[in-house]
Amino acid sequence: MSEITEIINELLKFRNDRDWEQFHNAKDLAMALSIESSELLEVFLWKKPEDANPDRIKEELADVFAYAFLLAEKYNLDVREIVMDKIRINALKYPVEKAKSSATKYDAL
Amino acid sequence: MSEITEIINELLKFRNDRDWEQFHNAKDLAMALSIESSELLEVFLWKKPEDANPDRIKEELADVFAYAFLLAEKYNLDVREIVMDKIRINALKYPVEKAKSSATKYDAL
Amino acid sequence: MSEITEIINELLKFRNDRDWEQFHNAKDLAMALSIESSELLEVFLWKKPEDANPDRIKEELADVFAYAFLLAEKYNLDVREIVMDKIRINALKYPVEKAKSSATKYDAL
Amino acid sequence: MSEITEIINELLKFRNDRDWEQFHNAKDLAMALSIESSELLEVFLWKKPEDANPDRIKEELADVFAYAFLLAEKYNLDVREIVMDKIRINALKYPVEKAKSSATKYDAL
Repeated sequence: MSEITEIINELLKFRNDRDWEQFHNAKDLAMALSIESSELLEVFLWKKPEDANPDRIKEELADVFAYAFLLAEKYNLDVREIVMDKIRINALKYPVEKAKSSATKYDAL
Repeated sequence: MSEITEIINELLKFRNDRDWEQFHNAKDLAMALSIESSELLEVFLWKKPEDANPDRIKEELADVFAYAFLLAEKYNLDVREIVMDKIRINALKYPVEKAKSSATKYDAL
Repeated sequence: MSEITEIINELLKFRNDRDWEQFHNAKDLAMALSIESSELLEVFLWKKPEDANPDRIKEELADVFAYAFLLAEKYNLDVREIVMDKIRINALKYPVEKAKSSATKYDAL
Repeated sequence: MSEITEIINELLKFRNDRDWEQFHNAKDLAMALSIESSELLEVFLWKKPEDANPDRIKEELADVFAYAFLLAEKYNLDVREIVMDKIRINALKYPVEKAKSSATKYDAL
């Protein structure tokens, strides 16, 4: 069993033990993911990047991953595959020679 | 090499080919993660969960994972480990007998 | 008629002309507000604060206000009153002598 | 003095009494706005729109307005004017005859 499948199985077990699947429609899962990444962002608020508390980052990032994995599972998406696909798409949008050292968005390149 | 390490290596290669590490401080990475999860949320806006476009979900979720993995790498966090740790913490906050079938937040349980 | 009432009336007229009230339940309005403030945030991504494009800020901030006003209207909230109330609450959480020049969150003060 | 100017003056007074202007660069203000609208969204998580707690909505919406007004002040933007401008732009993107009763985004209309 792959590492990611293992993580997802643990998340599902935790959820099913609590009968929470009824709340976990895809729309609320996407809301939860967005809320958790905002809580992660809050760790950096009014601060320099290096002054953010690493323990809080660890905890909030774990929540982000939890909902992201649950959404992937909901849509039967293979995480490795969708990220690799996206890298391929972005490689076309941001060819090395044009995008090098530039933070310009692709539609303005 | 683990599956997640492999994904992260591909993301780093893509980034380093474009010299983008200079933009990727932790604060802006956390912003990017939050922005991408908001784009994922937009796929569900004004819709029933089942009417959201699965292709867009796949693409936006891939972006969420990309920034989440890059943040994990930045802080040398093992994704499997931090999610398992969080499951353990949540198991204490939400004991099965109290949390079963309830969407109440732990501090109101 | 107050300035804010006037703005809200224009927003309602725009919406009702298009029969959009049916989509504007409070949950989706809150989602739209969150999505728009994330689009505003994107204007600052990978940039120094002073390098963000003011025209885009203006447009995205207008969208944020539009949904915030529509939510206030939905709950019959007087914007001036709720902000003043919140200032009073925050004045207790952040007394001048303790909070001066500090970005520490109230629960850690 | 207009209602909105009055609100903004109260917000500035609160901030200046605490010497917080030093933290309030536009990028962190935009982050704070995004974080607050996410906290508002959390009030609706796992719930039907009508089951969200109105008192919490009131408080979180007040925070959203506070940062939105502070950003408007930072860029010398007239809130009434930018919202009216945006309504005019949206009226072109979403003409009544095409957009009526439809939640389709303008670029797919």
